[in-house]
Amino acid sequence: MKRICVIGHHAPSSGDFSLNDLAGGAGRMDVLCRCVSSALFLSHGIRRDVEVYLILLGPPRPPVTLRFSGEEIRSLNPDERSTASLIRKALSLPRGDVFRESTPGLAVRRGGLAELLADHPFAVLHENGTDLRKAGSLPENVLLSDHLNFTADEEEIVSGCPAFSVGPLSLHANAAISLLLNEHDRRSAGWT
Amino acid sequence: MKRICVIGHHAPSSGDFSLNDLAGGAGRMDVLCRCVSSALFLSHGIRRDVEVYLILLGPPRPPVTLRFSGEEIRSLNPDERSTASLIRKALSLPRGDVFRESTPGLAVRRGGLAELLADHPFAVLHENGTDLRKAGSLPENVLLSDHLNFTADEEEIVSGCPAFSVGPLSLHANAAISLLLNEHDRRSAGWT
Repeated sequence: MKRICVIGHHAPSSGDFSLNDLAGGAGRMDVLCRCVSSALFLSHGIRRDVEVYLILLGPPRPPVTLRFSGEEIRSLNPDERSTASLIRKALSLPRGDVFRESTPGLAVRRGGLAELLADHPFAVLHENGTDLRKAGSLPENVLLSDHLNFTADEEEIVSGCPAFSVGPLSLHANAAISLLLNEHDRRSAGWT
Repeated sequence: MKRICVIGHHAPSSGDFSLNDLAGGAGRMDVLCRCVSSALFLSHGIRRDVEVYLILLGPPRPPVTLRFSGEEIRSLNPDERSTASLIRKALSLPRGDVFRESTPGLAVRRGGLAELLADHPFAVLHENGTDLRKAGSLPENVLLSDHLNFTADEEEIVSGCPAFSVGPLSLHANAAISLLLNEHDRRSAGWT
């Protein structure tokens, strides 16, 4: 299982955002939707061995964590709007401390980065990390930030995590995810 | 200059499509918008040395070619909806055989693949091509298809073009673009 987590610093933690303003009023929910798509979609299929976690830190009741399970997801399409629509449904549910499914393969709970790191170890994808292509073994679980840098508090929480870089330029999070998964694909297939 | 061209087999050639249904009634315009974003955006900037061409083959008056110039583009945001909105404006203009600018950095003309290949040589990104990482020199200009395969007619037109592959699995076009540009970035920066 590979796990990919993206922190949405302004993404709303309730479902009352407009699907027509994902990049504005919805706190750059578009960035997160593209990450879900890049992490889970192959050209004609789903990456069943991937889970995506979105940590939403926007108002009104953060933090919230969404979990998309590649193994179980249904009704997911690659476009931003339909992914955001699934997220909106998930955020309209009452939520507790354990994951509760809203639609098949999508679950939601209270809590954020600290809770997720208590469940699983993560590496960080970051410009200053080790080149992924040179890593002896690739990280299974990786954490990225949205269009903003990690906050000082987040930096402290992840300070002990190994860091990897996908290339010499700073890229959008969904591009970094595509690059990570391609490196996994190549190694699995024996493409050196 | 790098040029990236994506063929949209059902993407409409007029501007009267709904921004609320890019993945449906708008003929998978979402796929093309993600390609524009992946080709032109860095984390906090634009790839000024990239041009993106979208060839639209859907009704009512195909083929049409759009050209996004990284050097000159303005008002472009990474989300699908705002990119589609610029496309809609471009498609509402009368068009001729030469590119005409609709908004800064976005131009439109009649014509499709044959006309573009008459202007510039292109390579094809395709599952069966040579591994990009092993290419002695990387292609500057690449052609991809949207969610559909090239048609028989297109296959014939590109049969003489060199073909390159980004990895062992078939991926969405925008992911393939990210992988190509990362390989360029790495070579330019001396990351071997």
